[in-house]
Amino acid sequence: MKSFISYPSDSDFSIHNIPFGVAVFNKQYIACATRIGDMVIDLATLYDYGYFNEIDGLNDNVFEAYTLNEFIELGKPITNAVRIKIQELLLEGSPLSHDERSLEECFYQLDQVKMLMPIHVPNYTDFYSSMEHATNVGKMFRDPENALLPNWKHLPVGYHGRASSIVVSGTHIHRPCGQIKPVDATAPIFSASKQLDFELEMGFIVNRNTEMGTRISTAEAEDAIFGMVLFNDWSARDIQSWEYVPLGPFLGKNFGSTISPWVVTLEALEPFRVPTPKQEPEVLDYLKFEGDKNFDIQLEVLLKPENGEENSICKSNFKYMYWNMAQQLAHHTINGCNVEVGDIYASGTISGKSPDAFGSMLELTWRGQNPLQLKDGSERKFIEDNDTIIMRGFCEKDGVRVGFGEVSGTILPAI
Amino acid sequence: MKSFISYPSDSDFSIHNIPFGVAVFNKQYIACATRIGDMVIDLATLYDYGYFNEIDGLNDNVFEAYTLNEFIELGKPITNAVRIKIQELLLEGSPLSHDERSLEECFYQLDQVKMLMPIHVPNYTDFYSSMEHATNVGKMFRDPENALLPNWKHLPVGYHGRASSIVVSGTHIHRPCGQIKPVDATAPIFSASKQLDFELEMGFIVNRNTEMGTRISTAEAEDAIFGMVLFNDWSARDIQSWEYVPLGPFLGKNFGSTISPWVVTLEALEPFRVPTPKQEPEVLDYLKFEGDKNFDIQLEVLLKPENGEENSICKSNFKYMYWNMAQQLAHHTINGCNVEVGDIYASGTISGKSPDAFGSMLELTWRGQNPLQLKDGSERKFIEDNDTIIMRGFCEKDGVRVGFGEVSGTILPAI
Repeated sequence: MKSFISYPSDSDFSIHNIPFGVAVFNKQYIACATRIGDMVIDLATLYDYGYFNEIDGLNDNVFEAYTLNEFIELGKPITNAVRIKIQELLLEGSPLSHDERSLEECFYQLDQVKMLMPIHVPNYTDFYSSMEHATNVGKMFRDPENALLPNWKHLPVGYHGRASSIVVSGTHIHRPCGQIKPVDATAPIFSASKQLDFELEMGFIVNRNTEMGTRISTAEAEDAIFGMVLFNDWSARDIQSWEYVPLGPFLGKNFGSTISPWVVTLEALEPFRVPTPKQEPEVLDYLKFEGDKNFDIQLEVLLKPENGEENSICKSNFKYMYWNMAQQLAHHTINGCNVEVGDIYASGTISGKSPDAFGSMLELTWRGQNPLQLKDGSERKFIEDNDTIIMRGFCEKDGVRVGFGEVSGTILPAI
Repeated sequence: MKSFISYPSDSDFSIHNIPFGVAVFNKQYIACATRIGDMVIDLATLYDYGYFNEIDGLNDNVFEAYTLNEFIELGKPITNAVRIKIQELLLEGSPLSHDERSLEECFYQLDQVKMLMPIHVPNYTDFYSSMEHATNVGKMFRDPENALLPNWKHLPVGYHGRASSIVVSGTHIHRPCGQIKPVDATAPIFSASKQLDFELEMGFIVNRNTEMGTRISTAEAEDAIFGMVLFNDWSARDIQSWEYVPLGPFLGKNFGSTISPWVVTLEALEPFRVPTPKQEPEVLDYLKFEGDKNFDIQLEVLLKPENGEENSICKSNFKYMYWNMAQQLAHHTINGCNVEVGDIYASGTISGKSPDAFGSMLELTWRGQNPLQLKDGSERKFIEDNDTIIMRGFCEKDGVRVGFGEVSGTILPAI
């Protein structure tokens, strides 16, 4: 497939991708969008020009919206048809490639566009599905000999996160304050967090509302997943460690989470399927599944000090996940919990086996014992003020590349 | 104050209350509503008849809505003015009392009305703020000598709950299924919960959207709280105990929570303020507060077997809470976490000191050791299929009664 829009061979936004997002065009007009190379396309105007007329069930201009929710809720038959239609329209020689007016009115260079939060998120759940991450945390905070808790290999452990504070890439986040308890103190103190961390995660977005009391099986789950984003689950380790027993993470997490602006569909990821790691002991029936349910997504984390260069500090891969997305969704609904359009279900920190594949500062520096050495000669145990954390992710196989771009966020001083 | 609507002296919905809810009138028309005695009043039509014309800032008919969110967001100056205006309109001799057409079109008997979920809930947090409850749980599951964890008296412990599955009183809930691990088993099994429980709680509802990175102080908190509801935090103890370490409650809770349909304003509760219990050790500055911040709300839980009588199984009081609502909200936002209009912040189980004041079956039966004896001769360790749990709450002082009515829910068999 060759598009009439040219882009470099290492672009995440090839003709094979066709992701969805929401953009402000020329600082004045908001609409749903897609992207190819460095060109962002206004889908609402493209709809008005009749390019989606032949798609059954797409009866309203759902792209004329501040979020993708209405589009997503149409379900796979329609959202897939739209994606394939866009792909056709972007091919060399397509009717659109000759339509000067549409090209002028719907196609924007990246610098004319600002990306917004792509979805309204009714509910957000964070899983804990990387065995390497759970093992690392268990070794550090519990028992090195029994790092994984007894339930970990029987169910995808998860907890509810805060939906209100999920923001789009580029949003600055202030260092959180709160209660921390210094090791040698008898009582907690009030302080800005001194152990601010990222967590390299990915999240999937659900395309339907279900009724309470119903379930989504592993076989049905992927039909209910519109697509995925990169997800930075910012974490204040000192606040978290004092507060989290017995009811779980709270203020150590809910000051902010950041997602990438482009939602990459499961269909675009289809060529990059790989098997889920072997699960032993055998899981209960409702967690069994068929087929390749993991995805080979290469992930990288970079730390950029203020006015400094990017430092690559972690290279991991989404394929390492012990529990796959179908299992996560089947587990989440096995008790009848209902899901809603736009819900985000995040993976938990995605760590690999080798120390340079650990998906958080906590693990990379082993609680600060082995600081990271940056190119500018400085060290990092945790994130410092004005540091920017950038996460990138892409798939590549047989010359086809599909990627997520990046999720980036700068930590501002505490207020 | 005497209304032209008569009601018994023990009505929760006296002229001193004026709660807000959302109703379906005559099975066809949905609008925001208030209630006096057994009369439910359609506020949207009352607005159209001009009865709120003189209220500054109430420029749209926000009562013509499926939720109270738009009304609540107007803030205290306007919502309080509306409540006081309704109170005036309901007094003997008011203009409304002679307005036959308005009385006919706006006033409905209870049986002509079905109450709906009063608010859209963007985020839900559950605290754990009753010392008696936390102590009971600590004694049962951890160390009887050190029942409270080290952080408990320093901060109001809380966790994020599931917003999607909060439903209004009267909604049936299916017994959840999931993983449970029998004590003598080496691996978990798939089963319907055998330890289904209620938790007697109350929740407060926030009236504003705040920006990330800002805080609500204890002094500002009550201005941000529109009102309160009764809250039943259904809990599957066997699912919960297997899953909850280390990240907190998840599927043991998120299959459903039930709230009462009438939101009682903080202003209606004003006469019933009482001091918060003494807090020792002294709390950090951001948790300090002035004035009486607890409320004397008498609470009762009843269990009604299918076709059976109501059995009173618990009498507690909201005044027992160790942490008050102002402290909960100040703590929740101290790290810059933003809040949204309609958010619910629940208290956690409200237990008193005496065993008949314990706010859950877990505590009342002490993990099933001392089953409850019901009037029909049957016993209960936990909730059985087709049992209905009813919670009631009211304040009473100097002949003035203000109450919440009830929150009720029936447990249906697992599917």
